[in-house]
Amino acid sequence: MSNYRATIQYDGSRYQGWQSQKSTENTVQGKLEAVLAAMTGYPVDVIGSGRTDAGVHAQGQTANFHLREAWEEDAVRDYLNRYLPADIAVTEIKEVDGRFHSRYHARSKTYLYRIHIGNIPEVFARKYVYHYSTPLDVERMRLAASFLTGTHDFRSFCSNKRGKKSTVRTIREISIEETKQELRIYYTGDGFLQNMVRILTGTLIEVGDGRREPEEMEQILAAEDRGQAGYTAPACGLTLLSVEYGE
Amino acid sequence: MSNYRATIQYDGSRYQGWQSQKSTENTVQGKLEAVLAAMTGYPVDVIGSGRTDAGVHAQGQTANFHLREAWEEDAVRDYLNRYLPADIAVTEIKEVDGRFHSRYHARSKTYLYRIHIGNIPEVFARKYVYHYSTPLDVERMRLAASFLTGTHDFRSFCSNKRGKKSTVRTIREISIEETKQELRIYYTGDGFLQNMVRILTGTLIEVGDGRREPEEMEQILAAEDRGQAGYTAPACGLTLLSVEYGE
Repeated sequence: MSNYRATIQYDGSRYQGWQSQKSTENTVQGKLEAVLAAMTGYPVDVIGSGRTDAGVHAQGQTANFHLREAWEEDAVRDYLNRYLPADIAVTEIKEVDGRFHSRYHARSKTYLYRIHIGNIPEVFARKYVYHYSTPLDVERMRLAASFLTGTHDFRSFCSNKRGKKSTVRTIREISIEETKQELRIYYTGDGFLQNMVRILTGTLIEVGDGRREPEEMEQILAAEDRGQAGYTAPACGLTLLSVEYGE
Repeated sequence: MSNYRATIQYDGSRYQGWQSQKSTENTVQGKLEAVLAAMTGYPVDVIGSGRTDAGVHAQGQTANFHLREAWEEDAVRDYLNRYLPADIAVTEIKEVDGRFHSRYHARSKTYLYRIHIGNIPEVFARKYVYHYSTPLDVERMRLAASFLTGTHDFRSFCSNKRGKKSTVRTIREISIEETKQELRIYYTGDGFLQNMVRILTGTLIEVGDGRREPEEMEQILAAEDRGQAGYTAPACGLTLLSVEYGE
């Protein structure tokens, strides 16, 4: 058995996400598994570093899978790229230690949320941004972000119903870049709960447009109640940039 | 009557081009005219700086049109952007001298042709590049380009059947940028014949992959025969970057 780590890009627009409980038909993982099964002649389980929601994009999603034979790394990459749809690409296949697990061993992830704020529509990146027309005060958003950085119980920022699993996570950094046309919010942390980046973004937007105060972030975290945080920003603006391992 | 100059971006993928003889239904010009007619209540003719083929994109196409009343520049721009489809955007509306004509007064145009040469598929720009998998020798292509630069009769590089109009044009510059994943060919000239940039690109590709010699360019020009030049590279890789006026 050989273990391979794949780095994957996708335009998530037409997928039900990385993985879906209901079917693998229209998921990125399902597409990868179908091509690998055709390549090997047996079913291959692809283990993602984590799920991305329906409509979310990736520049550097990571996954691993085991093959019974030793395959050449570039041959696997090229086979996948030949048969995957044009909106999914494998940028690298690397043979890794048999114990490597893309989810358990992920140290951190970096997401980018793109908010288009300009009054000229974005033609070429229109599927990768979320347009917001009310002016946003970036300094207020940065102050709010500073309350969210660090180790907290992020239950209020999770769409999952109350479960047994820990909702404590560490956000190492939230940085906001501003151009004339766009706000780009970068999130780096050890892991993110379901919809967490989108709820964080929706909450920061509500601070930016004046509906909330930056200081409220402390109360929202303390409440451990999804109802206290802001709305879930749309999937289209979100891209998983990279998954970092301790190498 | 007020005369307005519009700068327009579009993803040409789903259009029959800027303008079509057959119908205005699915052309960029037709979309602009429909929104302007709705805005003003009377038919408005939009005059483009030139046609772009079906499937060709634009970052900075230019057009002008006359309105019976004086409208605020930004109000026209915002109205157009509100009602145009998401793959067309107006980046600027400027009131100009009544005699300004976007085609007659254009001094030069700059086109970009993007050839994807990498072995990793391009997910996010997949609709804006042409993938070519045979290795291309860029130095040979640059040498061939040097024969094409300058003032020549480009009849061999024009898909139009022999007409009465002059096919003499001046190409000021052809420059080729090379990255690991892409060749980007920039063409600047005083004007381009029908399909000319795509035929130039197809011919340069045939030089790059070894099917032709750079020196053949002189014979192709002299032949004044479309059959002597290379193939027409696909529309998807081509973008009209800008139209320059003598301001």
